[in-house]
Amino acid sequence: MNTKTVLIVHAHPDPASLTAQLAGAARTALRSQGHEVLQSDLYALGWKAVYDAHDFPDRLDPARLSFVEESGHAFRTGTQPDDIRAEQAKLLAADAVVFQFPLWWFGMPAIMKGWIERVFAFGLAYGYQGAGNRYRYGEGGLAGKRAMLSVTVGGPASDYAARGINGQLDELLFPITHGTLFFPGMEVLPTHAVYDTGRIDAAGVERAKAGLAARMRGLFDDAPIPYRTQNGGDYPDRHLLADDVAPGVTGVRAHLRTA
Amino acid sequence: MNTKTVLIVHAHPDPASLTAQLAGAARTALRSQGHEVLQSDLYALGWKAVYDAHDFPDRLDPARLSFVEESGHAFRTGTQPDDIRAEQAKLLAADAVVFQFPLWWFGMPAIMKGWIERVFAFGLAYGYQGAGNRYRYGEGGLAGKRAMLSVTVGGPASDYAARGINGQLDELLFPITHGTLFFPGMEVLPTHAVYDTGRIDAAGVERAKAGLAARMRGLFDDAPIPYRTQNGGDYPDRHLLADDVAPGVTGVRAHLRTA
Repeated sequence: MNTKTVLIVHAHPDPASLTAQLAGAARTALRSQGHEVLQSDLYALGWKAVYDAHDFPDRLDPARLSFVEESGHAFRTGTQPDDIRAEQAKLLAADAVVFQFPLWWFGMPAIMKGWIERVFAFGLAYGYQGAGNRYRYGEGGLAGKRAMLSVTVGGPASDYAARGINGQLDELLFPITHGTLFFPGMEVLPTHAVYDTGRIDAAGVERAKAGLAARMRGLFDDAPIPYRTQNGGDYPDRHLLADDVAPGVTGVRAHLRTA
Repeated sequence: MNTKTVLIVHAHPDPASLTAQLAGAARTALRSQGHEVLQSDLYALGWKAVYDAHDFPDRLDPARLSFVEESGHAFRTGTQPDDIRAEQAKLLAADAVVFQFPLWWFGMPAIMKGWIERVFAFGLAYGYQGAGNRYRYGEGGLAGKRAMLSVTVGGPASDYAARGINGQLDELLFPITHGTLFFPGMEVLPTHAVYDTGRIDAAGVERAKAGLAARMRGLFDDAPIPYRTQNGGDYPDRHLLADDVAPGVTGVRAHLRTA
């Protein structure tokens, strides 16, 4: 058996919540495949969501707070707080990361956004190798890892369809899938969504758990979202799409190789 | 002079930051127009970013934590924590709200996302009048107010252009402008962005402050983003766009009346 390590990050304070149940179902499914599972139950950890000066106990510049500069300095010199270092160690040990969260205002809960902000340090997830934006979108400090969003959504699937009123789900999540996870080099799988959780019943919960378990079986085999790599030739000049690449297509969808 | 009240919410812990300077420039410009300015300096407030059980001291169901149910109950019964009630009072007093923040991982800093999650209660910003999703997108508890995002961006404008590698800025921010601000009924102005802040100089800061001051002069007159209202006829069935509305257009852009 080809054993991998998977980190599950989840965000709901109630251990009986659908979010916690789905995180548990993913864990069980992964372990039954022989994988090792690491977990970050953000509410149980009492995760500090706010990125602030306390995260830089050894300041490069005590007078002015530049998050970019201080993040790079703290990461480089090993002066980050213990909670950040512990999460980075899990992230670096993981072959894949699953993010399980309820969609709140069309994004991650603040506690999970704060996990990204504090853990995705300069030098690790951006500014890789001190080379500015050179290694980005397909290359970077998290290259070789896979990632997947698993979201629970209160409303119906039709609201998130291609012409649904909320906007298409994969475009709403593009800042995360593309801008946060593909950015430092991860291969990002299509998002797994469970809809209508506002009125889910016990049978629906079991179906949702089974659906996520099925997705876990493809975690290392399923095709990732076909985002264009920065250095693959599609962006030859100033990180703009070449004229002959998806000619006339604009916006977030232009960055799919299928566009 | 037609005096209005404007709430400026901003998120950066350093009082000398570009974010704080821009919030100050907006405040000065608005006051010079005779408007009253309210402020929420989230880091200075020590804003609690994490939405959790402490926000519901009088639980409807002590056993299971449903944020939707408990939010509605707490809002309805006046049992919300003081910090949430204070921010809601400012929000309700405001004719317009300006959000000033650095773009972190293509979204709001966690501390500001947590302001939205905790302040935008059920019964106020969603579930208006106990009518589910009936009043939404153009109608709702914040109808009649205006909103504007004012963001600082480390990278160059070209990265956020229509075919720039990060994705077009207004599509990246759609979950906020459309899904968070237009959702409860606010008229949302086009986002104001200052790029290349990673290497901005003193003259650039002055230009940025002047640019934002100019936008403040149009805060109550400029045309909002032309999002389609839910109940205006474009979504006649199950909140899907009618076939003859922007035929063939999909994704977030379909929800612009100009699509």
